[in-house]
Amino acid sequence: MIVQNIDEIPAIPYANGAQKRIVLGRDVGVPNFVMRVFDVAPGGASSDHSHPFEHEVMILKGEATLKGDGVEHKVAVGNALYIPANERHTLVNTGTDTLRFVCLVPLSGEEDDLPK
Amino acid sequence: MIVQNIDEIPAIPYANGAQKRIVLGRDVGVPNFVMRVFDVAPGGASSDHSHPFEHEVMILKGEATLKGDGVEHKVAVGNALYIPANERHTLVNTGTDTLRFVCLVPLSGEEDDLPK
Repeated sequence: MIVQNIDEIPAIPYANGAQKRIVLGRDVGVPNFVMRVFDVAPGGASSDHSHPFEHEVMILKGEATLKGDGVEHKVAVGNALYIPANERHTLVNTGTDTLRFVCLVPLSGEEDDLPK
Repeated sequence: MIVQNIDEIPAIPYANGAQKRIVLGRDVGVPNFVMRVFDVAPGGASSDHSHPFEHEVMILKGEATLKGDGVEHKVAVGNALYIPANERHTLVNTGTDTLRFVCLVPLSGEEDDLPK
């Protein structure tokens, strides 16, 4: 068993005002899916994109608007989000605090050259 | 895209002083892995078991001791845990507040008759 301290994992600059940490990935031996944590500054957003794999997301801190093609949802702590493969999506930090969310993808989604 | 309100999902009694919610599962169409949320009362614990699939866990609230074969870790908010397949494990709520954690498993881990 492996215990990670999320805030001790190096953060990678990512998208608009965001950073990404790979919390449970290939380096610890996960065989099927990868846990990443994203922090987004107020006014920032995750990438506005689609890709051929799903996201499973949980909001950990802050508030956001989840935007897709013709649809928007206000989300906050207590919400879990499912983004099916090939659906356009972005999480915009519409609050005044840092937005933190955990986002899981299949192993292939963290290892190819596709947008994440 | 699907937005779930975790606390509105029916809770299933589980193990010793614990309850489980399937937050993102087969019913919303996930193809690869399932997101579950567990709440454990003070003094309670998740199942003490092993099974042939991994867990990826993040502590959301409270404090716990993660126990395995000959090893213990104190964990709290800010920790993510990886339990490889076939490693014995239990999370004991050693705090005074409810322990809440999110635990992801491959789709097969939520659909067979194995302990979860």
